Amino acid sequence: MPALLWPGDDRAGDHLGDSQVVAAMLRVESAWLATLIDAGIAPAAAAADLGEQAGAVDPEALAVAAEAGGNPVIPLVRQLRERLAGTHPETARWLHRGLTSQDVLDTALVLGVRETTDAMLARMNAQVDSLAELAERHRADVAAGRTLTQHAVPVTFGLTAARWLYGVLEARDDLCDARDRLPVQIGGAAGTLAAPAELLRRSGVGGDALALARAAAERLDLPWAPPWHTVRAPLTRLADALTRAVDAWGQIAADVLVRARPEIAELAEPAGSGRGGSSTMPQKANPILSILVRRAALTAPGLAAQLHLAAADAVDERPDGAWHTEWMPLVQLARLGLTAADQTAELLAGLHVDTGRMARLVQATASGLLAEQRSLTALVEGPPEPDFDPAHYLGGTDALIDDIVRRARTADRTRSGGRR
Amino acid sequence: MPALLWPGDDRAGDHLGDSQVVAAMLRVESAWLATLIDAGIAPAAAAADLGEQAGAVDPEALAVAAEAGGNPVIPLVRQLRERLAGTHPETARWLHRGLTSQDVLDTALVLGVRETTDAMLARMNAQVDSLAELAERHRADVAAGRTLTQHAVPVTFGLTAARWLYGVLEARDDLCDARDRLPVQIGGAAGTLAAPAELLRRSGVGGDALALARAAAERLDLPWAPPWHTVRAPLTRLADALTRAVDAWGQIAADVLVRARPEIAELAEPAGSGRGGSSTMPQKANPILSILVRRAALTAPGLAAQLHLAAADAVDERPDGAWHTEWMPLVQLARLGLTAADQTAELLAGLHVDTGRMARLVQATASGLLAEQRSLTALVEGPPEPDFDPAHYLGGTDALIDDIVRRARTADRTRSGGRR
Amino acid sequence: MPALLWPGDDRAGDHLGDSQVVAAMLRVESAWLATLIDAGIAPAAAAADLGEQAGAVDPEALAVAAEAGGNPVIPLVRQLRERLAGTHPETARWLHRGLTSQDVLDTALVLGVRETTDAMLARMNAQVDSLAELAERHRADVAAGRTLTQHAVPVTFGLTAARWLYGVLEARDDLCDARDRLPVQIGGAAGTLAAPAELLRRSGVGGDALALARAAAERLDLPWAPPWHTVRAPLTRLADALTRAVDAWGQIAADVLVRARPEIAELAEPAGSGRGGSSTMPQKANPILSILVRRAALTAPGLAAQLHLAAADAVDERPDGAWHTEWMPLVQLARLGLTAADQTAELLAGLHVDTGRMARLVQATASGLLAEQRSLTALVEGPPEPDFDPAHYLGGTDALIDDIVRRARTADRTRSGGRR
Amino acid sequence: MPALLWPGDDRAGDHLGDSQVVAAMLRVESAWLATLIDAGIAPAAAAADLGEQAGAVDPEALAVAAEAGGNPVIPLVRQLRERLAGTHPETARWLHRGLTSQDVLDTALVLGVRETTDAMLARMNAQVDSLAELAERHRADVAAGRTLTQHAVPVTFGLTAARWLYGVLEARDDLCDARDRLPVQIGGAAGTLAAPAELLRRSGVGGDALALARAAAERLDLPWAPPWHTVRAPLTRLADALTRAVDAWGQIAADVLVRARPEIAELAEPAGSGRGGSSTMPQKANPILSILVRRAALTAPGLAAQLHLAAADAVDERPDGAWHTEWMPLVQLARLGLTAADQTAELLAGLHVDTGRMARLVQATASGLLAEQRSLTALVEGPPEPDFDPAHYLGGTDALIDDIVRRARTADRTRSGGRR
Repeated sequence: MPALLWPGDDRAGDHLGDSQVVAAMLRVESAWLATLIDAGIAPAAAAADLGEQAGAVDPEALAVAAEAGGNPVIPLVRQLRERLAGTHPETARWLHRGLTSQDVLDTALVLGVRETTDAMLARMNAQVDSLAELAERHRADVAAGRTLTQHAVPVTFGLTAARWLYGVLEARDDLCDARDRLPVQIGGAAGTLAAPAELLRRSGVGGDALALARAAAERLDLPWAPPWHTVRAPLTRLADALTRAVDAWGQIAADVLVRARPEIAELAEPAGSGRGGSSTMPQKANPILSILVRRAALTAPGLAAQLHLAAADAVDERPDGAWHTEWMPLVQLARLGLTAADQTAELLAGLHVDTGRMARLVQATASGLLAEQRSLTALVEGPPEPDFDPAHYLGGTDALIDDIVRRARTADRTRSGGRR
Repeated sequence: MPALLWPGDDRAGDHLGDSQVVAAMLRVESAWLATLIDAGIAPAAAAADLGEQAGAVDPEALAVAAEAGGNPVIPLVRQLRERLAGTHPETARWLHRGLTSQDVLDTALVLGVRETTDAMLARMNAQVDSLAELAERHRADVAAGRTLTQHAVPVTFGLTAARWLYGVLEARDDLCDARDRLPVQIGGAAGTLAAPAELLRRSGVGGDALALARAAAERLDLPWAPPWHTVRAPLTRLADALTRAVDAWGQIAADVLVRARPEIAELAEPAGSGRGGSSTMPQKANPILSILVRRAALTAPGLAAQLHLAAADAVDERPDGAWHTEWMPLVQLARLGLTAADQTAELLAGLHVDTGRMARLVQATASGLLAEQRSLTALVEGPPEPDFDPAHYLGGTDALIDDIVRRARTADRTRSGGRR
Repeated sequence: MPALLWPGDDRAGDHLGDSQVVAAMLRVESAWLATLIDAGIAPAAAAADLGEQAGAVDPEALAVAAEAGGNPVIPLVRQLRERLAGTHPETARWLHRGLTSQDVLDTALVLGVRETTDAMLARMNAQVDSLAELAERHRADVAAGRTLTQHAVPVTFGLTAARWLYGVLEARDDLCDARDRLPVQIGGAAGTLAAPAELLRRSGVGGDALALARAAAERLDLPWAPPWHTVRAPLTRLADALTRAVDAWGQIAADVLVRARPEIAELAEPAGSGRGGSSTMPQKANPILSILVRRAALTAPGLAAQLHLAAADAVDERPDGAWHTEWMPLVQLARLGLTAADQTAELLAGLHVDTGRMARLVQATASGLLAEQRSLTALVEGPPEPDFDPAHYLGGTDALIDDIVRRARTADRTRSGGRR
Repeated sequence: MPALLWPGDDRAGDHLGDSQVVAAMLRVESAWLATLIDAGIAPAAAAADLGEQAGAVDPEALAVAAEAGGNPVIPLVRQLRERLAGTHPETARWLHRGLTSQDVLDTALVLGVRETTDAMLARMNAQVDSLAELAERHRADVAAGRTLTQHAVPVTFGLTAARWLYGVLEARDDLCDARDRLPVQIGGAAGTLAAPAELLRRSGVGGDALALARAAAERLDLPWAPPWHTVRAPLTRLADALTRAVDAWGQIAADVLVRARPEIAELAEPAGSGRGGSSTMPQKANPILSILVRRAALTAPGLAAQLHLAAADAVDERPDGAWHTEWMPLVQLARLGLTAADQTAELLAGLHVDTGRMARLVQATASGLLAEQRSLTALVEGPPEPDFDPAHYLGGTDALIDDIVRRARTADRTRSGGRR
């Protein structure tokens, strides 16, 4: 799904692309069918590898057909039943029984978004490693602090890296949490599980519709939750956490863009083949990774807001438009997030840090950078310190770096790191 | 570009699809090359039909290559030069000379968006016809007015249609205006037209760089304007007008959705083959056109806001991310708008109006609908009017319908209607 | 701070009003001053009750003076020093030493938002009680389920209440979590704690600047965190959780608004004195609580997006505008949230549920409501069941209600309930 | 209405403050009452100066009372009737007859927003003057052009000023247009003008309800339009144009913020007394006007989107929440816009331009700035030009400045300039 007007989108690979969504919908239908068979509702003859049908489904045709009912599940089920009627009549007969479109699409999107999130978490782990190393390597490399665009007091580049790291750590925690709370959606037509219960009753099997839903959840390795047809917290929580991650990368990109300006030139992006070029100016080396990450940062908040709006406008047992507004911003936010995660990881792994340039600026502007320090000298009596070195006005910099890097190093890597 | 998770998107056809954007970029490069040849800067041998190259360009590969420079123009120019080097060396040599990436992409998007807007205006003209007819046909069909969800005073369904029409007319005017103000973008590397001027000087032709830009604009049938690399008003104006149109359709859809509820059942969508069905409930006839239009209405404001944010964050002679955030929301807003325009036109052309149902409700609730009227009776002395008919409490309804329909009928149809 | 154009805002009382923010800023300065004295940096004579100064501060004058430096802390400190110079010279001398404006304002907003959140949580606990009761009381009261505005399969009103409850529970968890993670902000001019460290050094006291910050945090009963001048996750997390709560209430309000329509009339708002009236129609009883809650639901997503945008645009050690954009949306979101929390609590406590009306609709539409059930009958062989009762097609409704109510009843009430 | 957390808000004075809105509502009621008297519906004895009542209305009490009906008009009318009952019984009797709350509030907001827009346009005229002067004064002052943060080709600062001017001119045109299209709102309870028509009928006066509405519009010096209770185009058009203006100022602020960085130092803000200071760093001179303008630029798009959302969600003859969401973002957008207009005018009037610094940078980086020029040299045969001066690579700069300044000078100043 590379998109001409969305540079870098190919970094997101097939994640949540149309084919992947079809495959995920088939996975959901398969899991449910297997659950029906297991429970003794559907006959063993209904068993079939629906995944094999994936190739036969044309996403474009499905997309066109999706309009009539408002979602792609309806034509998918119809197509599958038609295809299977001849060879697998029992499969055709039992397919999708007990579910509603929203069950299939919501769960498929949850599966897709969870995979995308895992890929993102893997990039975040790489970012954390790069940042912890930058923080430690440059812990004593003094640079001018800047507030409201003007020079403030001295900092070190290591502290800047630690500050970036802090943002990524905060975001990673929330993203892991939101990821783990993405549940299966199985509620049937109006969230009562009436059809599954009816199937149990009429087939004489007996038992509990909720147990059926829980069994399907287990097959899909998803936590169970009550039907959330109109309780969209699982999605807004994930979208918020994704946006928080993009925010953290946006902050990194903004800093790189300022400090890569030729008049400052303290940071430079890793050179890639042909990267940063212009169509007309041969001398150009534009910080294009940061530019594209910043693009994501300016875009993500609006996408997440769209998901909240959909949640806030939910009505009835399935809403009249709000649900339909969720799909595109969710997919775009996830893909844009993964792209930005990957670009940021690459940026940080190869970031050029010109500590000499930083040091020269500190020397040249030492008087301003130490204005606060001198005002404190006036406050606390004592001899003047005319040759005070900016490198001695760093306060808790070292301890702050230690604190943040320690958090990075002691975080449970298996939690997010093992994925992907 | 049908998208699985964007039902109805195929109604927008190829508009602003990747191939169309490539074709538009080639059109811009062609117009500029022809201008250079015309001016005597480039030799006649540089002439070539770049449009023929369209087939050779792989949008997916271009999309991947676009990341390095941040936009697709850079790899497109490189590819074209490589392809043409053997057969059309002068074309390869003169291609894109004097332009910058932003000139090509902005102008290509302007061309694409203008075409999409024209298609939308054609649908709006159809809507206007349907609505004027509905307003007149139902001018005297009394219905309960509703405010804050509760019954208010009587209206007629004709007035409701006129109100909808009013919104469409307001939007159409703004959209025509914004459409006509979409200018060519030709500024060169930093908006100074330095390269075109240099080409004029060194080729000994002399003359004026602005005249060159104006000539290219004329070839593309676009108005000229000073380079707007960081003055994004043309795009925000168009996006705002598009959104205003979607707002108008959203209002129509919201009314249909309320009045198509089975407990009210005053309106119904035109039946389409298989339309409005459910994956599990055979009795369902969901008002799916309105639902998808409402989806657009809830989505458009955020997309337009993104374009304003990009405009507000513009910096330098070309911004570091803000420009790059414009492309996707612009394309999505235009395609979503065209889809919603088409769906609304279909909805209005076939809307079922149950005037009997409306009348029965008015009868049943006449006392409440006339409470205001009775309070005025108390105010202005005179005999009580016990059997007052709600149909006599319609005030200026007729005159308002006339006023709005007259505007619809006397609008300059050639302005927007002749397009597409 | 009641605002004419924000009906219901007085429900938020003084929360985050200008005077409260001034008081919170004084509390922060006081805590820091006490910390300096405790540490032996400032002399005991610097001790003063800054809270007493609150009355002397004119918020309007402060607001005007805030423009010069871009925030209200700068003129507040200046005013306090001037006022205290005569009577408390040591207080005047030591006030604010070691802090920067952002430390004071961020921490003050954290204190204010935390209190507002606690007030909101108290309302949510009341909502949870009302909803659990509604869910149990109406667990068997059958009603028509509705999807995409049309009748679907039967539900019970108890399940609807449980679904609302589920949304509130999800939101409450996130809000408690985000509330507890709001940290103190103490970083000094550029987040290095250089000034506190310098004060320790020059006063000969020795020790650790971070320890000083932690001590101040403890005084304010806030968790410590590294300076988050440009890591805005604590605020976006809170804003997201607030919005998630408003989403949950918006869903409730949307349902009430549909079902309070006179043609449906299954639900009605509690009557308040003069509530729901019109300026001209005497018969009106508008569902005004739900309308105002819905207003909040349509508004909150944009406010939270603004906080994310500020986070994403953070640059340097303090950003050039992004920080300044946070304050108003944060305050508005918190106040609007508290207003909506209170309105929803009132709405739920007095909601009129017309179960007779629901039952009559179910009877009248039983055939449609059971269309799915009949299609399953066809699927699983067995005798037809002509007089099947919609009340027998409720699937896991009871178990779902139990599951959600159990969660409500077993939640740690002391966590959020003990507050306020 | 200075707000502690909205620095600079006092620049917006009383515009759209609570008292002003009350005064505007009284103006609307007065105009309508006078129209009723003029028409012979109400007796001459109903005449009264409602403006005199303004002092007696307590906006805070009104705000609290506004919740019951959802808007402040209902309690205002009640209060006025109670106050006037004794002294002006006929006024009390006839007040508000024929109107609905929305008529009064919408028209009052239109009056308030129009005044605020006029004040904004006056600032824009001043900006235009400053910018035209800057463009001409610095037309030949060469500076480095910057794209994607890196040096591009030479520009002049005069062209930068002309580019800013271009944005302001585009915005001013749209704002004038939107301002002039703000209509009166008179529709009665459901937009039919039933009550005015009934008053005409029963009072035996006869005549036309629309004529009555037009007469009231004339009294208020507003254009008439059909009732736009749910057609919100007039407000979204105004909000869009306001945002377009803020976008233009945001672009200016962003450029100043980059070029005021100490490493670049090409521009500086006018010094104001105490402006730009810090609470702890005595050396600081922060570009605070630009920071606050940038704050507005990052905030406005979300506010305008809120108005579009309200328009898109309009339903029935008066919507159930969407209308209520408009008021605060509209007021905030208008006040924030006026503040930013004023700040930008001040910034531009006193902007320090360091042309020497610009020139030195051009000298130091001439080789890079001329890389494109050299590549054209290679294209068009001819002798190399080793000492080519960047000042000779400015293309159409002069002509572009002329074009834009001419537009500024020939614009119809009376249109917007005469106001305020």
